[in-house]
Amino acid sequence: METLRNRILEDGKALPGGILKVDNFLNHQMDPNFMLEIAKEFARRLEGRGINKIVTIEASGIAPAIMLGYVMQLPVVFIKKKTPKTMQDMLVSQVSSFTKDRTYTVCISRDFLNADDKVVFIDDYLAYGNAARGVIDLCYQAGAEIDTMGFVIEKGFQGGGDQLRYEGHNVESLVIIDSIDNCEITFRD
Amino acid sequence: METLRNRILEDGKALPGGILKVDNFLNHQMDPNFMLEIAKEFARRLEGRGINKIVTIEASGIAPAIMLGYVMQLPVVFIKKKTPKTMQDMLVSQVSSFTKDRTYTVCISRDFLNADDKVVFIDDYLAYGNAARGVIDLCYQAGAEIDTMGFVIEKGFQGGGDQLRYEGHNVESLVIIDSIDNCEITFRD
Repeated sequence: METLRNRILEDGKALPGGILKVDNFLNHQMDPNFMLEIAKEFARRLEGRGINKIVTIEASGIAPAIMLGYVMQLPVVFIKKKTPKTMQDMLVSQVSSFTKDRTYTVCISRDFLNADDKVVFIDDYLAYGNAARGVIDLCYQAGAEIDTMGFVIEKGFQGGGDQLRYEGHNVESLVIIDSIDNCEITFRD
Repeated sequence: METLRNRILEDGKALPGGILKVDNFLNHQMDPNFMLEIAKEFARRLEGRGINKIVTIEASGIAPAIMLGYVMQLPVVFIKKKTPKTMQDMLVSQVSSFTKDRTYTVCISRDFLNADDKVVFIDDYLAYGNAARGVIDLCYQAGAEIDTMGFVIEKGFQGGGDQLRYEGHNVESLVIIDSIDNCEITFRD
């Protein structure tokens, strides 16, 4: 997605250690028009796949997911990273985070994910793919089909995307970054 | 907001202990069209106030806030509940949560909240008003003006809204619930 590449080059900050900061338009401050553009590109790639539900995970996935829900006219469910007291009949999985060096619980109500669902999972970043694995596990438990995993930015050099593709998953990343060496960003063609 | 009242009566679940579950359209599964309708109503109430930024707090505030950003053509910033490693020059405040019986940290980058900002804070729920107080503190630290606090649902019987209004804040709640006694919902006129 050309406009996203340009936006990353203009507004993103590449930091030592392979860190890309895009917090001025994507995951802290958010540009609603650009979020809609992102959603339209996801919708274009998902056309004709028969998806009936959008699943995301709090917090940075929610904005692109709700915009995609609006464009595709589909309900959106966000997976929670804590177990709410009032949620009954939950599906629960564990996710280990490399960046945060800890394991956290993710959960979704059975009311909103079941065997009738053909799902696209949307998130802002794909790095090692740990959150994606938690979502795959929740879909498996629910008997739902996970058709596509869509990410705004894939950090190709952290390997999660290639591993998921190797396993047969349909991964749609709007841009793939192959390296952030010496604070310079190289995109995959 | 009549359509919101009706939606709460149709799809909400009133539980013992003053709990209202609206997780099938607002804060777990989300209806994008209804979220846009909510945003349009906020925009109508905010017209002419000279607001230049929308601030929300993760996670359930993000969907109505990004939709409002789209309707009003304004940037949206979401306050984080954890301190990201990569965020420098942060403003930090503490929020005590009654429902979760703990204190948590909220933070926002100084890059995205400053003395030029006239802000509306958007969230899904107003109960005791603790999150709102954290946001007021962050705006105070940034030198930003907090013009309006807008909530989809105010639980009037938990008192946060009336206290904030008493202190002179402009609080815009799309519906106010005065009681959920015996699992029956009574709205404020």
